Amino acid sequence: MGSLSLSSDEGKPIKCKAAICRKAGEALVIEEIQVYPPQAYEVRIKILCSSLCHTDVSFWKLDSGALARFPRILGHEAVGVVESIGEHVDGFKQGDVVLPVFHPHCGECRDCKSPKSNWCTRFCDDFLSNTRRYGMTSRFKDSSGEDIYHFLFVSSFSEYTVVDIAHLVKISPEIPVDKAALFSCGVSTGLGAAWKVADVEEGSTVAILGLGAVGLAVAEGARLRGAAKIIGVDLNPDKCEIGKRFGITDFVNPALFGDKTISQVVKEMTKGGVDYSFECIGVSSLMEEAFNSTRTGGKAVILGMEKRALPINLGSYDLLRGRSICGPLFGGLKPKFDIPILVDRYLKKELNLDGLITHELSFEEINKAFDLLVEGKSIRCILWMDK
Amino acid sequence: MGSLSLSSDEGKPIKCKAAICRKAGEALVIEEIQVYPPQAYEVRIKILCSSLCHTDVSFWKLDSGALARFPRILGHEAVGVVESIGEHVDGFKQGDVVLPVFHPHCGECRDCKSPKSNWCTRFCDDFLSNTRRYGMTSRFKDSSGEDIYHFLFVSSFSEYTVVDIAHLVKISPEIPVDKAALFSCGVSTGLGAAWKVADVEEGSTVAILGLGAVGLAVAEGARLRGAAKIIGVDLNPDKCEIGKRFGITDFVNPALFGDKTISQVVKEMTKGGVDYSFECIGVSSLMEEAFNSTRTGGKAVILGMEKRALPINLGSYDLLRGRSICGPLFGGLKPKFDIPILVDRYLKKELNLDGLITHELSFEEINKAFDLLVEGKSIRCILWMDK
Ligand SMILES: [Zn+2]
Ligand SMILES: [Zn+2]
Ligand SMILES: [Zn+2]
Ligand SMILES: [Zn+2]
Repeated sequence: MGSLSLSSDEGKPIKCKAAICRKAGEALVIEEIQVYPPQAYEVRIKILCSSLCHTDVSFWKLDSGALARFPRILGHEAVGVVESIGEHVDGFKQGDVVLPVFHPHCGECRDCKSPKSNWCTRFCDDFLSNTRRYGMTSRFKDSSGEDIYHFLFVSSFSEYTVVDIAHLVKISPEIPVDKAALFSCGVSTGLGAAWKVADVEEGSTVAILGLGAVGLAVAEGARLRGAAKIIGVDLNPDKCEIGKRFGITDFVNPALFGDKTISQVVKEMTKGGVDYSFECIGVSSLMEEAFNSTRTGGKAVILGMEKRALPINLGSYDLLRGRSICGPLFGGLKPKFDIPILVDRYLKKELNLDGLITHELSFEEINKAFDLLVEGKSIRCILWMDK
Repeated sequence: MGSLSLSSDEGKPIKCKAAICRKAGEALVIEEIQVYPPQAYEVRIKILCSSLCHTDVSFWKLDSGALARFPRILGHEAVGVVESIGEHVDGFKQGDVVLPVFHPHCGECRDCKSPKSNWCTRFCDDFLSNTRRYGMTSRFKDSSGEDIYHFLFVSSFSEYTVVDIAHLVKISPEIPVDKAALFSCGVSTGLGAAWKVADVEEGSTVAILGLGAVGLAVAEGARLRGAAKIIGVDLNPDKCEIGKRFGITDFVNPALFGDKTISQVVKEMTKGGVDYSFECIGVSSLMEEAFNSTRTGGKAVILGMEKRALPINLGSYDLLRGRSICGPLFGGLKPKFDIPILVDRYLKKELNLDGLITHELSFEEINKAFDLLVEGKSIRCILWMDK
């Protein structure tokens, strides 16, 4: 045709398979869909694998409110390869290995340019659109021609997806694909929280409420910074062993402490509280416990998403004893700047991720992956698109 | 006697005048007291002047609980001259101009050595003692020989007082004495909050709830950093004019906005909230308003002391939109390091304090100073010991 085509499908819809969530809590259905070409500032990518995160499960179950939308393609922790690019796309080309990331990084707004914040003011306040710059426009249609909703600007439970460049990070192709996917959400969030938000230092004390992928990544981050005591808190006794591999020095199963609150137990173990606490579950009462577990002068970092949006009650006297509490998204990291640094540290063998991937399944077995996570049997299950 | 005496009273009690609070809320009584010599790590200082701070009024009124103690010598914002020193006192000698500071800085504990914190872990958790290292031991006796309680380790409403070196900062004698006193508490707190805790930057937006000395110092700090919008909130309409001298660009009297909350008004004025908010009053509902006045990604700094210790209710969803809230003491400043820097900036005419001192009275008129502050007529009233 005379044009320099990047791919045989460039500029055309691609027919491929996707796992569609048609109703809250119902098994996903693998269907044939059409993925439309990327518009300006967008990239169409071929997903290599996704890993399942608790946020996928939360939105799968969500049956009311503005965020409950169906039919929808879930999935947001993934790695892919660029298939084609839209207009005004700099820095990405066909064949690049990329991570889609739910947290935007436009690189141009005041916050993106500031070293103080990872809050992209240009894009962060819109969680409701399908695509970053085109509102409710969808790039997905099902076989009947109906639009399918996007999810967190990623929608990785599809062989192909379209992602805005503000949500895309180019990474080194040297990293094993399954490990790469972990950096797309949970592991980066945990490491960022430990390193950038809390800035854990040698000899300090840490409490982590919830030892899923995020909590274990916090532990790994704290371990590498030389924290003296890293208390892991989880109702699942299996998390004690896995926790220790990531640096947990003390394990607390709250069920074994009777009427004592988590913060009472933590304070007794640390003579008054930890320097840094991390809530990695998303329950407001546990966010309060995380805050109350800190010493005077300490810091609580809230990473779990409270789905019911319940309030948090803090003692004003406690706050005024030099404490702080914050709710950073994506561990305070700027995706385009910080993810490549994390990947680099992994490639230099400075980071331990072994044990986070507990299961691997083919994409067709996606509902089994949901079951494993809901039942607390998996930490991360990799869903391979081509296996 | 053969010894190199620093003062004729060295090693002996000094008889002098002090304003004693004998009962909550009752007029202070000027009495003759004895001020005992400084013990190891203590310094006896001659007070040149005190300025009255709202915390003095709060503890004057406090009539129950472990912190309500009588008879007591209040006063904690002051400047003095070293009269004599105890053993193991390095860095202070007779004649030094010093600020006593309620916030300790031992210089040796982990937090004092850390650049991240101004929380002296060695001393900060004890608010109940009279003297820093000697528990309930008092350096004051009244004419009947009864011990008098100290206040915030300072007790400046006395011609002489004894202060632990962890609470003492040597400053340049070039600064006018009355201006120096302001750096002992309120002004340092406000400037520190703006510069060190919030780190206000050029073009940012700020809301300040309460335009007393602390709030006005926050405004001055934000103005010097080039904040684009500095919203002052106060029920006293007189604060509009004075506020503008310290950089307030917009004044909000909440009484004029009917049913609208402060945060609703601030959000309307700033398209969604300010970058930084400061609560300088000490009321839990206003702490919540300060938090709710911030934009997504914003920071609320709580400086007012909630006397009733009422809880603060935060929306977990709001927190998880990149917001943070903290309750630093003394504006996040390390007194010995940071106060001399602030004084230096004042001497270089980089700081405006004109207008903060609205009244000057002799020490004998101290009850009039309380009236003026309680009635909202004064911002800072200087009490001169020798005039
Ligand atoms: Zn996730
Ligand atoms: Zn941005
Ligand atoms: Zn004060
Ligand atoms: Zn210290």
